[in-house]
Amino acid sequence: MNFKNYSRASIKAVTANDSIFKSRIEACYKATIPSSIKQCRETGRIDAFKLDWKPGMDKQPHIFWDSDLVKVLEGVANILAIYPDAKLEKEYDEIVSLIASAQQPDGYLNTYFTVVEPEKRWSNLFDCHELYCAGHMIEAGVAAYELLGKRELLDVVCKYADYIDSVFGEEEGKRRGVPGHEEIELALVRLYNATGNERYLKLSKYFIDERGREPNFYTEVEKTKQYKWQLERHQAHMPVREQSVATGHSVRAVYLYSGMADIATLTNDEKLFEACERLFKSITERRMYITGGIGSTFEGERFTTDYDLTNGSLMYAESCAAIGLVRFASRMLNATGNGHYAEIIERAIFNGVLCGISLKGDTFFYTNYLEVDDNTTTYNMGSKDRQPWFHCSCCPTNYCRFIPEMLEYVWSENDEEVLLNMPIANTFKSRFGELEVSGGYPYDENISVVVKDSPKGKFSLGIRIPEWCEKYTITLNGQAITEKPVNGYIKLSVQEGDKLDCCFDMPVKIIYSNPKITNNAGRIALMRGPTVYACETIDNPNGTSNMIIDTQAGFELTTVEGLPEGTVAIKGKAIYETFPADGSLYFDKPMERTAGEFIAIPYALWNNRGSANMAVWIRSKQG
Amino acid sequence: MNFKNYSRASIKAVTANDSIFKSRIEACYKATIPSSIKQCRETGRIDAFKLDWKPGMDKQPHIFWDSDLVKVLEGVANILAIYPDAKLEKEYDEIVSLIASAQQPDGYLNTYFTVVEPEKRWSNLFDCHELYCAGHMIEAGVAAYELLGKRELLDVVCKYADYIDSVFGEEEGKRRGVPGHEEIELALVRLYNATGNERYLKLSKYFIDERGREPNFYTEVEKTKQYKWQLERHQAHMPVREQSVATGHSVRAVYLYSGMADIATLTNDEKLFEACERLFKSITERRMYITGGIGSTFEGERFTTDYDLTNGSLMYAESCAAIGLVRFASRMLNATGNGHYAEIIERAIFNGVLCGISLKGDTFFYTNYLEVDDNTTTYNMGSKDRQPWFHCSCCPTNYCRFIPEMLEYVWSENDEEVLLNMPIANTFKSRFGELEVSGGYPYDENISVVVKDSPKGKFSLGIRIPEWCEKYTITLNGQAITEKPVNGYIKLSVQEGDKLDCCFDMPVKIIYSNPKITNNAGRIALMRGPTVYACETIDNPNGTSNMIIDTQAGFELTTVEGLPEGTVAIKGKAIYETFPADGSLYFDKPMERTAGEFIAIPYALWNNRGSANMAVWIRSKQG
Repeated sequence: MNFKNYSRASIKAVTANDSIFKSRIEACYKATIPSSIKQCRETGRIDAFKLDWKPGMDKQPHIFWDSDLVKVLEGVANILAIYPDAKLEKEYDEIVSLIASAQQPDGYLNTYFTVVEPEKRWSNLFDCHELYCAGHMIEAGVAAYELLGKRELLDVVCKYADYIDSVFGEEEGKRRGVPGHEEIELALVRLYNATGNERYLKLSKYFIDERGREPNFYTEVEKTKQYKWQLERHQAHMPVREQSVATGHSVRAVYLYSGMADIATLTNDEKLFEACERLFKSITERRMYITGGIGSTFEGERFTTDYDLTNGSLMYAESCAAIGLVRFASRMLNATGNGHYAEIIERAIFNGVLCGISLKGDTFFYTNYLEVDDNTTTYNMGSKDRQPWFHCSCCPTNYCRFIPEMLEYVWSENDEEVLLNMPIANTFKSRFGELEVSGGYPYDENISVVVKDSPKGKFSLGIRIPEWCEKYTITLNGQAITEKPVNGYIKLSVQEGDKLDCCFDMPVKIIYSNPKITNNAGRIALMRGPTVYACETIDNPNGTSNMIIDTQAGFELTTVEGLPEGTVAIKGKAIYETFPADGSLYFDKPMERTAGEFIAIPYALWNNRGSANMAVWIRSKQG
Repeated sequence: MNFKNYSRASIKAVTANDSIFKSRIEACYKATIPSSIKQCRETGRIDAFKLDWKPGMDKQPHIFWDSDLVKVLEGVANILAIYPDAKLEKEYDEIVSLIASAQQPDGYLNTYFTVVEPEKRWSNLFDCHELYCAGHMIEAGVAAYELLGKRELLDVVCKYADYIDSVFGEEEGKRRGVPGHEEIELALVRLYNATGNERYLKLSKYFIDERGREPNFYTEVEKTKQYKWQLERHQAHMPVREQSVATGHSVRAVYLYSGMADIATLTNDEKLFEACERLFKSITERRMYITGGIGSTFEGERFTTDYDLTNGSLMYAESCAAIGLVRFASRMLNATGNGHYAEIIERAIFNGVLCGISLKGDTFFYTNYLEVDDNTTTYNMGSKDRQPWFHCSCCPTNYCRFIPEMLEYVWSENDEEVLLNMPIANTFKSRFGELEVSGGYPYDENISVVVKDSPKGKFSLGIRIPEWCEKYTITLNGQAITEKPVNGYIKLSVQEGDKLDCCFDMPVKIIYSNPKITNNAGRIALMRGPTVYACETIDNPNGTSNMIIDTQAGFELTTVEGLPEGTVAIKGKAIYETFPADGSLYFDKPMERTAGEFIAIPYALWNNRGSANMAVWIRSKQG
């Protein structure tokens, strides 16, 4: 296949000047990172690496603890690349040294299986997260090296990866295991990219190839599992190249698919890439919330069936899964240069991902409900409000990494051109020169791009035309551009001093959902640009579940108090149903209806002004 | 309190001549009972009582197996009281003798804790169903004695109950345990009523009193559980007299509340009865489906929060729970003579209970969904269709008992009067004489009651005026009765030869639900009399989730093929939304709408003509 081999932008090369990324990254630096380090310290996740835990003591290391700490460390490296901070760097270095001190002579590095159940090392890959923790540690090591030039953690993870490679593989004397929670596949590719050592690429490819192959590792070799549905939950029910339907635990799924896309691109494996394309479609065309959230049930945190996308108690849409979808989509984008993948990245980031973290950066949703009522049962969250930490705290620690990582998705570049995927205000030091985007995207229709310099002369710049945008104008130095987009991008030859002015028409859109999503029957959602809106009872004290939007009456843009400056809210007419005097569960008199107004705010910003009820999909007068 | 002390009718005293009870009981005799015995035989539930299972052998007894078999036996006793059958009786006697042979010298009788984990007898009451199995065995023993005059199983269960009484209680040397799955409380009351032995009443009262009392048995004594939510799931989080909210596993809950109502009535315990009243209201005013189904989530098979009554994947409404609600309501009815309790009995039987078993009597719902779509995830059922048996087969075996037991709820009587709770066509040998009800209830508005004889002269007959009925006429020997109902009944003095003609106006009613049931917003259900209707795709090939009922257009009554003779269906106008050509998940064009018709059938009869989608709550044109 003719892969385009674009790269994500480096965090170091992009500086956000916008109203969303910039403030979110600042909150990550000021709140998310410090509070996550504090939580890791207080819960014992750091001290665990002292390896002095003994049976009977408090704070027994857990099988997923290591991953939490090293994810925070990866986030610290990302943040230090943006905000140099000697004090934070010192703390980071100390934790890294502590981790290094816990590495075993053979290279193994896992607190749980060193101090709690040392005899069980590699004995239950299906459930026990060993290779998952290793993968996250590898990612942290790569970030330390690539962003900060630090080698200590990189050396540790290389030694660990070498050891893992000596244990697992097809060669005689090695075990044919595969991880129960995928992650190490994409991590090993990052390690290969950072070091050039093909051993890591080969090991990653082995884990991809072995998964779901007969004799199945879990049922025939390890014999830890028995049923096909168990295998499906871990995407191990058939060889990955044959998979077409996104199944099972949604975070595991998109981490696996990311690794598959990496391997497909790097090894030019057409069949593997076609599987990635099918799985991407399975998710985004049949199993994805309007917000980019995925994995629609808390039961197994997993994908269920096509079009099963309920909005309330049952649903999940785990924060980590939306983050993982962005990572998967970015690999597909950079393999193909197809803007459709950037459309999904944009939808997920501005809605499903950013919803999971408070504006202050100190509390998190595990489950990203699309509807919260008085009677919502928070099966996993335990609360309708964002929480500072969780027993299984994968989401907060993923935000430590992901919030600065958002910069990587703004641009793509390869040896031939630069692509502008999301035109937030920012500057980018591309390999062809510095580019500056200004404007109020995604709330303002107008953006400008200035080529600050182009040392090598003219180069190709692709401007993505969003799929949600039906009308747009682009001028280059005042001259209208009339080319049609190809694969979602209009490509222009530009050089130092050029200025592009773009207007992406951004009316309020009434969105209907496929009637196969039966719980949305009769309901609409509102979008403007890439932003999905929600009605929160804070702005709508008459209620949200009894609200009927009058879609004929038009909408106006407005602002509400308590949300960041520049945030655009939507105002319109609604009918409110009220309850007759009789307080029964069921009755034979219609509701009373009164006319009123409603206000909708960006979904990602709900629950930032106190507890409230909220709905994305709302009944409409015309049905 | 001034308890009325009505009794349920004996199964032996009522003969059904109607179109529903009669055919359902016949199907129970011809299909449910034989297939359940067969399943018990094939799965090892009968052979378990040979006590010859050894580790390593197949068909290891399970902690709930005994309950399944003895529930079938109770059902056989009920059926033999209606249909004498020498072959079935012989098989029954042989199984009873086998069970008797398994009783231990001390009286203990439980296959699992005799052959699989004998050292763990009574060691984990919270999870291990020992007292639950004992309770069901006691009920089977009472039925054998009361209906068939057989003493063997009664003697066995008396010995077992005596042994249990020697183990549990407040007295010195006894253990202060309570059952993790309630059932024995109501069973011991039945045993007391059958034997007159106050020891059983006292033991039942002990289990009721001890539950949730400090020091809490589960957290402080047995120390098998730690968290309040675990206690709430077993209704053991506070003393029962203080409970006001129906919590936890819904079957356990209604079994407990039934026992509480029994003890309150028999011991004249006002405080305990007030708790029953509060809990009944908690269920029926805030936590009950329109069908009488209860327990709205598969997760823990439990009650969640007020008004959380979703219709699809997440929901539960276990068959056993609706059955248990009838049993609880009947105790409240017979304690008070208040027809509101009969209203709930009627609603549950004709809808939520009878839905759980096929017309043929050979397959069963565990979960009684109110909406089934292409994307319904059957978390517990494993299928959208009724199944012949389940690993945990409480529901099929409950139907063995309950289908004939329905006769008990048709009438109530005490020393002063007879109450007609559900006027199905039947004859009843009351203590005042024989009564005959004719008519096509619940599909036909007209019923007649004839007093066939009254050896002791005049007596009081109460005719219940259903709460759903806004207009009715009653004549006694042609003379109009103008009294208003008191507590839901019009009481008339009648004697041999008297004839009552009643007409209960039965229009199709559009039912709205409390807007706090947010998933029903904009939807209506149809009822006629006590019957809840549903639209099944078999009659509505254009679909149910995309159907909008035109409530202004009126309804007509009709019949459909494949349902029992006399079944009334409803026909009306509907609008169908169809999908634009674009196959996206989300799009910005409204659906296309076409006019058409719909047909609704009684909810309890859906899924009897093949697999289909179905909905009870359907969008309506007027919202």
